[in-house]
Amino acid sequence: MYKKVDNKDIEYLRSVIPANRILVHDEISDDYAHDELGGIEVKPEVLIYVRSTEEVSKVMKYAYENEIPVVARGSGTDLVGAAVALEGGIMICTKQMNHILEVDETNLTVTVEPGVLLMELQAYVEERDLFYPPDPGEKSATIGGNISTNAGGMRAVKYGVTRDYVRGLTVVMPNGEIEHFGGKVVKNSSGYDIKDLIIGSEGTLCIITEAILKLVPKPAYSVSMLLPFMTMEKAIEVVPEIIRSKASLTAIEYMSLDTIISAEQFLGKKFPDTNYEAYILLTFDGNSMNEIQDEYTKVANLCIEKGAIDGYFVDTDERKKSVWNARGAFLEAIKASTDLMDECDVVVPKGKVADFIKYTHEVGKEVGLRIPSFGHAGDGNLHIYLCKDSMAEEIWKQKADKAFELLYTKAREFGGMVSGEHGIGYAKKPYLARQVGENQIELMRSIKKVFDPKNILNPGKVC
Amino acid sequence: MYKKVDNKDIEYLRSVIPANRILVHDEISDDYAHDELGGIEVKPEVLIYVRSTEEVSKVMKYAYENEIPVVARGSGTDLVGAAVALEGGIMICTKQMNHILEVDETNLTVTVEPGVLLMELQAYVEERDLFYPPDPGEKSATIGGNISTNAGGMRAVKYGVTRDYVRGLTVVMPNGEIEHFGGKVVKNSSGYDIKDLIIGSEGTLCIITEAILKLVPKPAYSVSMLLPFMTMEKAIEVVPEIIRSKASLTAIEYMSLDTIISAEQFLGKKFPDTNYEAYILLTFDGNSMNEIQDEYTKVANLCIEKGAIDGYFVDTDERKKSVWNARGAFLEAIKASTDLMDECDVVVPKGKVADFIKYTHEVGKEVGLRIPSFGHAGDGNLHIYLCKDSMAEEIWKQKADKAFELLYTKAREFGGMVSGEHGIGYAKKPYLARQVGENQIELMRSIKKVFDPKNILNPGKVC
Repeated sequence: MYKKVDNKDIEYLRSVIPANRILVHDEISDDYAHDELGGIEVKPEVLIYVRSTEEVSKVMKYAYENEIPVVARGSGTDLVGAAVALEGGIMICTKQMNHILEVDETNLTVTVEPGVLLMELQAYVEERDLFYPPDPGEKSATIGGNISTNAGGMRAVKYGVTRDYVRGLTVVMPNGEIEHFGGKVVKNSSGYDIKDLIIGSEGTLCIITEAILKLVPKPAYSVSMLLPFMTMEKAIEVVPEIIRSKASLTAIEYMSLDTIISAEQFLGKKFPDTNYEAYILLTFDGNSMNEIQDEYTKVANLCIEKGAIDGYFVDTDERKKSVWNARGAFLEAIKASTDLMDECDVVVPKGKVADFIKYTHEVGKEVGLRIPSFGHAGDGNLHIYLCKDSMAEEIWKQKADKAFELLYTKAREFGGMVSGEHGIGYAKKPYLARQVGENQIELMRSIKKVFDPKNILNPGKVC
Repeated sequence: MYKKVDNKDIEYLRSVIPANRILVHDEISDDYAHDELGGIEVKPEVLIYVRSTEEVSKVMKYAYENEIPVVARGSGTDLVGAAVALEGGIMICTKQMNHILEVDETNLTVTVEPGVLLMELQAYVEERDLFYPPDPGEKSATIGGNISTNAGGMRAVKYGVTRDYVRGLTVVMPNGEIEHFGGKVVKNSSGYDIKDLIIGSEGTLCIITEAILKLVPKPAYSVSMLLPFMTMEKAIEVVPEIIRSKASLTAIEYMSLDTIISAEQFLGKKFPDTNYEAYILLTFDGNSMNEIQDEYTKVANLCIEKGAIDGYFVDTDERKKSVWNARGAFLEAIKASTDLMDECDVVVPKGKVADFIKYTHEVGKEVGLRIPSFGHAGDGNLHIYLCKDSMAEEIWKQKADKAFELLYTKAREFGGMVSGEHGIGYAKKPYLARQVGENQIELMRSIKKVFDPKNILNPGKVC
C-alpha cells in the first residue's frame, strides 16, 4: 500500500538534509523500533534528525508526493506505541530541534522547538523566576511529545495540563505546508480551534515544529508532606475528603508500600519511611508562607482525623531527594520487577479514585495478576501496571486481556476515560473505540482524513 | 437550495413538541431576526422553545432529513450575527433549557442546561461557596452562548476563559444523533479533542444541550482599585509594567473618560471620579487578605511611580455599584450615543495593548470616525467601537470599511487575532479569511463538512 523507501528516495532526502543526519536501515539503532514500554517493535526505513521547520516541510512534501509513511518522534518515552513506525517509512526525530527560542517577560511566554526536554524547559524558566507548571513524571520527554499526548503530571490538581499552557503552534501539515495556529494571545475566538485539536493528536494530524507556551510567575514557596496510613483503603479514602475541604493543593499523589519497595530496590536508596502500607504525598505552593501554612495545617489535621498515622515535612534536601527520586522511579522500578508489563492510564472523576483503586485490587485477585499502581489521586489519573512476572506468554495474554477489559469497563461505568495523559497510540485503540462508540471514531477518522487524505502521517494510531 | 418550511413540516414539529412552544412566521417577534448589535436581520420561519436534548434531537433529525436549516440561539446577545437565521428555517431557542442540574462538591463541577444565564450560574454557585470564574460583561448571555464563542471576560488575566472551565458536553449532531464529549474528568488524552473543537464553533458543528463545568472554591476576598491618569497614554503604558512586575491580579480593565461619561449619561448615575482622562480598574482576589494587601500595595506604588494620580479602593457598596454598573453599561452606553455602530473585538499580545489603543486614536483621526474603546487591558482583548453618529449611510460604510481594514491589519502585524471573545459569526468572516489564509479556511470548511455534510446547521457563519 505505501511506497517502500528506495535509493532514489534516499538520494533525494540527502539533497535536502545533510547526509550525516540521515540514517538508513541497519544504521538505525534498535531503540528507534520501540517506545519506552516496548509493546510493539517495527524499525523505520530511514531516520532523519531534523533541525528546522523548513527541513520537516521538505521531507513531508516529498513523502506526501511519494506516499511514504512518516512518524515524528521525540525522546520515545511514550507507553502506547504512538512513536513507533508501524508501516516503516521515514522517522523524523526532533531531538536536535532543541532550542529555547525566546522568553517573553511581558507576555509571559516561552517559545521552544519541539525537541526541548521537559526538564531543560523547567530549569531554564525557573532560573528566570518563571514557572512552567505541567509536571509529568518523565522529565526526559520532549515538549513536542508532551503536547502530542496532552501530558498531565502531578501539578494538574492546581495548574491543569499541558493543553492549558499551549498558546500557539507552528506545524507542518502532511502535504508539507507550514501553518501557524494561535499565537501569544490569551483569548481567542477566531474560527475553529484547530490548535486544541492538534494537542493530544499524537502526531497523526501534523508535525509540531515550534510551540509558544504560557508561563506563570514562579511561586515563592513549595512545601510537601508525606502522610503514612495503616492500609491503602484508609489512604485513598481521605482523598475525596481533602478535595471536599476546598483546600488549595498543588499535588495529591498516592503510593503503596510495594511500589515504594520496588523503587528502593531499583534505586538502591532508602525511602524515609517504609513502616506502613500506603502513603499520600501532598504539595502546596504559593507566594505567602502564611497561607501555605494555613492550608497544610488544615489538610494535615483532616488527614490525621481520618486515619493518617503522622505527617512528615519533605523539607531537607536529603528527604526531598529520597521522596521525589522514588516517585520518579516508580515506572522504571515496576518495569524492572517483572519480565514484561502493560499499563492502564485511566482517568476517573476525582470522587471515584478510592473506589477505582480498590477495584484494581479485586481485579488482581480475580484474574490472578500482580497489579501495582500509583498515580495522581488529586486529579483522578491512575497509573496501573499489569505485571507478567514469570508467567507463560499464553496465560499472561489471556489474563492481561481480561484485566484490561474489566478495568476499562469499570472506568466507563464511573464516567472515566481510557487515557488521562499517555494517549491511545497503537495499544489502546480497541479500548477507545469501545468507550466512545462507532459514531465518534468515525468522526475522528474523518477529521484525520481532512488533515491527511493519504493517511501517511503516523498511520495506524488513535482511530 | 434549502427546503422552505411548509405546513407539513409544522404539523410534524407539533407532533413532537407541544404546540405552545412553536411559533411560526408572524407570530415570531422581530427580536429573533437580529442579535444585540443588529448588523443583519433575517427572521426564522419557525421558532421552537426546546426543553430537552431529546426534543432537540427530534427536531434536528427531521431538519436533516428534509434539508431545513437550523440555528440554535440563547439570549441573542452576540455582536457578529452568529445567532441570526440567515437562511430562514428553524430557530431552536434554548432559553427554556435553563436548569442547573447538579453541583458535584467532590469533583467541583456543575452540570447545566445551555439556557442557564451567566448571572444565574454565578449567583447559584457562589451561594454554595463555589466560583465560576469566567466573567464576560454581558451577564444575561446564556452559558450555551458563552461556550459557543469561548467567551472570555474580565477575570481571564488570572483565571482563563470559558474553554478552561468546560469539562464535558452533551450535543446533538446535525443528523440528530446525541453524543457526549469529555466528562467530569480533569485529564484526558483519549483520542482527538472534539470537545475543544466544539467550544467556540458558534453553533455551526452541533447543538450543545448540556455542559459539565469546572468550578473552583470561591476566593474569600476580592478587592478592586480605581486609578486615574492624566492621559490615556499614561494609563495604558502602565499595563505592561504591571504584567512584568509578576503581580498576581484578577483583572486589569481600562476605561477612557468619554466612555465613562457616556455610561453616566446612559445610566443617569454618577461615576466616583470624572476629573481625569483615563482610568485603570484593577481587581485582586484570594484567600489571604495579607497576600492581597501585599500585591495591591506593590502594584499601586508602581502605578503611582509611573503616573497614576491616585488609587481609590472600590470598597463601599455604593462605590462598587457605581463603578461596576458603569463598566457593565459601556457597550449599551456607546450604542445609545450613536445612530449605529460596529465593533472590533481584536486580541493582541498583552505587551502590545498600549500601542494598539494609541493606533485606534490615529485611525479615528485619519479616517474621521469617533472610535471609543474599552476593554481587558490585562489580557490584550480590546473592544473598539466605530460610531456612525449622524453620518450619511454611504460615507459611514466607506469609513467603517477603511477603519476595520486598518485595525485588523495592525492586529495581524502585532501577532493578534480577529476576535478575542465575540467570535466571527457572519460579520467578521472576511477578516478571519484574510488573517488565517485560504489553507486554514479550507481546513475549517472541511471540518464543518465532516460534522454537517448537508450544511444545515447555522449556515453562512465562521468559514
